[in-house]
Amino acid sequence: MNAKGIKKVTIVDVAKEAGVSISTVSRVLNQNTPVAEETAQRVWEVIERLQFNPNAAARKLASKRTNTIGLIVPMIGGTFFPLMFSGIERGVNEEGFELLVYVSPCHPVPHRPLTPPVGPQNTDGLIVFTEGMSDEDLRALHVKGFPIVLLHRTSPKDCEIPYVTVENRLGTEKLIDHLIEVHGYTRIGFLRGPVTNEESHEREQGFRASLQKHGLQPDEALFGIGNFHPETAAESVRQMLSSGKRPQAIFTGDDASAAAVMKALLEMGVSIPDEIAIVGFDDDYLAPYLPLPLTTVHSPIEQAGYTAAQLLIQQIRGEAVQSQVLPTHLVIRRSCGCITSHPS
Amino acid sequence: MNAKGIKKVTIVDVAKEAGVSISTVSRVLNQNTPVAEETAQRVWEVIERLQFNPNAAARKLASKRTNTIGLIVPMIGGTFFPLMFSGIERGVNEEGFELLVYVSPCHPVPHRPLTPPVGPQNTDGLIVFTEGMSDEDLRALHVKGFPIVLLHRTSPKDCEIPYVTVENRLGTEKLIDHLIEVHGYTRIGFLRGPVTNEESHEREQGFRASLQKHGLQPDEALFGIGNFHPETAAESVRQMLSSGKRPQAIFTGDDASAAAVMKALLEMGVSIPDEIAIVGFDDDYLAPYLPLPLTTVHSPIEQAGYTAAQLLIQQIRGEAVQSQVLPTHLVIRRSCGCITSHPS
Repeated sequence: MNAKGIKKVTIVDVAKEAGVSISTVSRVLNQNTPVAEETAQRVWEVIERLQFNPNAAARKLASKRTNTIGLIVPMIGGTFFPLMFSGIERGVNEEGFELLVYVSPCHPVPHRPLTPPVGPQNTDGLIVFTEGMSDEDLRALHVKGFPIVLLHRTSPKDCEIPYVTVENRLGTEKLIDHLIEVHGYTRIGFLRGPVTNEESHEREQGFRASLQKHGLQPDEALFGIGNFHPETAAESVRQMLSSGKRPQAIFTGDDASAAAVMKALLEMGVSIPDEIAIVGFDDDYLAPYLPLPLTTVHSPIEQAGYTAAQLLIQQIRGEAVQSQVLPTHLVIRRSCGCITSHPS
Repeated sequence: MNAKGIKKVTIVDVAKEAGVSISTVSRVLNQNTPVAEETAQRVWEVIERLQFNPNAAARKLASKRTNTIGLIVPMIGGTFFPLMFSGIERGVNEEGFELLVYVSPCHPVPHRPLTPPVGPQNTDGLIVFTEGMSDEDLRALHVKGFPIVLLHRTSPKDCEIPYVTVENRLGTEKLIDHLIEVHGYTRIGFLRGPVTNEESHEREQGFRASLQKHGLQPDEALFGIGNFHPETAAESVRQMLSSGKRPQAIFTGDDASAAAVMKALLEMGVSIPDEIAIVGFDDDYLAPYLPLPLTTVHSPIEQAGYTAAQLLIQQIRGEAVQSQVLPTHLVIRRSCGCITSHPS
């Protein structure tokens, strides 16, 4: 509502009235990506008819170049991020940009700023890792024409923000296929990632698809909370075992959790892989060097980071870009029960 | 000069006239750390006499809390940083702060911003890693009373900015002592870090001190450029060898360079450690897992990051803090020529 009590016309109204997506309205307004002549004309007609006035100030701000790329991540320590950061840096440095990283933990923070300290005010565009920004905030920036690339998550509904993800579902399915077909395991545990995390859902889909394909029923008692957080994962497995549940193998959700679970099991005197096999996802720095070299899904972490930087800079330059889903592949080492290390 | 052509009185003039350091003037102005009564009185007299007017706006800005810590680093990929980031994150998260990281590469960037995008405008204080900010810029922020902690470097002259460093000189001396005393090497190569990097100078001092103690002359032909940059280090060693120089051992300056040098030598068919021993500095993530497990100096990288975060937050809360030099120790693995891995 404005001061006169009249409801302000938003881009959502324009999109609805013109029968197009918010992204299309945004593209018409910003004229940085081609839109079919006929569509553009319809959008402009609706804009005039509804007297829609996009926030001119915000659009002007966005056109002021900072030569800085913003990145939003939940943390920067740990073994997953170095490869991702190397890729992003490679892409950013090649094009003469600098990087500003906002580390916004998933857990509640007492005085979290209302607007992120990276955005149109100090960057030319944002790489947003997983759930680093709410769908609402993403939409608000996107409709202003501010360049964004999502990394390891897809776009919120109603907009078409370019993204870079990896084949989580298929990669996990092949991993579980291996445990069932080669090793004959039927009782396989799974540690779920954060509920808001898309990659975790895709991995669970792949996990269930493999069980179903082989006529196995998922056993809810063998599902635990991992949260992609090593200590949480280790504690879940301790509880699973102390409650008398005994999987033959555990898919820990990611490699960092696999390392922590492996350590916890070895401390409990459980033999790996003979009593319980452990498999992960990522193929991070340490995967080959764990006490039992880890069988895992190789995710092109560096390449995904690099691609995200490239797509963002192309957007900043006004070029059209296309979302990408990068392939993953199974890496067989010894933690699954295989005797020799060989790629598959 | 101001508009009337009269030279503006600066904090440097006040410090000189009062016969105290810039830090002392800053402390008197900001009243956040105790200063001797007599000294404070003398400073206030000079301030009045010279009609010094500290930038009120800047000081007001600095008093507006953002609950965000700024960090300036040259890069975020690679094997050194994950441990440092984990430590900083641990310190920051414990106290409910968030983190904003400006990645400012050492190499020239076409459109580097005149003022860093992290500072009093969006953070409560800064952790500055090595030479991430010029002495001049550090002084300018420090005299405004803006909290800063230097990480892996000491304070510029004329001010007393708190810092956290590690024992580079002594650590390196013990490392080289080991090569000479246990293995009898006399021709030892050294790859210098960046010329502007204080840690590199300290490691070179330790290197030379060990040679001198054992009556060995440093051979300039065995010094090369490493720049703490793996590819540069590998290329220097290739050139050293192709020019006919043959060290018995090489101290590569850091572990990431040791990994690259090791790879280059193995590709050239050089046997490690039999023909050339390799030693590093840091004890990073991958040091135990290189083709020849690396003999190196363990640097408390995580602890240094954590301590820097603690000192910064204490400063933000107006507490007095003290710079710290953390101890290092030798870690003997196999790349030096020792047969078994054992700590020393």
